[in-house]
Amino acid sequence: MKETKRSDGIRAAAAELFAKYGYGAVGVAELGEAVGLGRGALYHHITSKEDLLFDISWRYMQQLIDEGREIIAREIDPANRVRRLSRAMIGVVYDHRAEMTVCFREIHALSGDRQRNVSQLHQDYQQLWVDTVSMGVVQGTFRPIEKAAIKGLMGMFFYSFLWLNPAGPQTANEIGDMFSDLILHSLIPWGHTKTCGDAN
Amino acid sequence: MKETKRSDGIRAAAAELFAKYGYGAVGVAELGEAVGLGRGALYHHITSKEDLLFDISWRYMQQLIDEGREIIAREIDPANRVRRLSRAMIGVVYDHRAEMTVCFREIHALSGDRQRNVSQLHQDYQQLWVDTVSMGVVQGTFRPIEKAAIKGLMGMFFYSFLWLNPAGPQTANEIGDMFSDLILHSLIPWGHTKTCGDAN
Repeated sequence: MKETKRSDGIRAAAAELFAKYGYGAVGVAELGEAVGLGRGALYHHITSKEDLLFDISWRYMQQLIDEGREIIAREIDPANRVRRLSRAMIGVVYDHRAEMTVCFREIHALSGDRQRNVSQLHQDYQQLWVDTVSMGVVQGTFRPIEKAAIKGLMGMFFYSFLWLNPAGPQTANEIGDMFSDLILHSLIPWGHTKTCGDAN
Repeated sequence: MKETKRSDGIRAAAAELFAKYGYGAVGVAELGEAVGLGRGALYHHITSKEDLLFDISWRYMQQLIDEGREIIAREIDPANRVRRLSRAMIGVVYDHRAEMTVCFREIHALSGDRQRNVSQLHQDYQQLWVDTVSMGVVQGTFRPIEKAAIKGLMGMFFYSFLWLNPAGPQTANEIGDMFSDLILHSLIPWGHTKTCGDAN
């Protein structure tokens, strides 16, 4: 238990440092200093700096995927799925900004399998949105859009690590709802009045 | 002239290296190797690695701002402004992917005034979109959206460095049009039939 807490602390400190200075600019010595451990003691807790980056990068993407799958399993209405996926995504960036900054910005610094693994998580997450939009199209709620357009929508969320500010005037849910409103306005065909009213 | 060409080559090589490995992970020695210059000869052409990063980061943002201001000056229709701004932005990321990756991903690695300067360019660029949307609202073409929603829209473009692929099946203009279609569908109020038809 104590061991896990120490690892959590090291991971949190590493995420802060990587987010602030960039992964490549942070040395193991600086990391040890930040958590009050010498190099030897630090290596008792971590395998390598890259392992730490990997661990930071997959954790919340995996959480988002798990949450997303639960949302899709429980919620049938495509517009409500979009609303809930949007709140979940903004919520995670809001609560774990350093980790999500590292996850989205430092993926190129991972090598081989680790990079493929995190890329795959990004793909899996995107697939939840592709499926949600497809389901809405099948049900006649959404107009069809291309896959690259979904990548565009993902950018709205993925880029938010740069400006989301928990000290700002809006809560995570308010921003999540603002984003789902933008997306639903775009996806719901003009003239589809009933759902339009719901989405606004 | 020859001097300028050499500087362009060094900047291009640095952008490729920074985009591939991250700014913090690339040393001046590796940069010199990539352009076939020793450390001393390289420093004849550059002041510092950070100066190079700064030079890469502001150049195309400034170009986008200049182009954007021209678009706004020449084009009165808000929907067409969105279409042109969208094409211009995707076009620059498409043509200068390494530079735009560095510009969007490595801003944290710039210090003091340089970081403020590049941040200001990002702000100035965003302001063009804020003004374009405001003008559309005043003219009754667009529904009003919050400023944070515009930051979301910027994310669609800013994040595209990660997946835009000039070797892919779509041209830059096709992707630019796909994005402006998404945005216009979102901005044009339901029931605004005439413009809806134009935008689709």
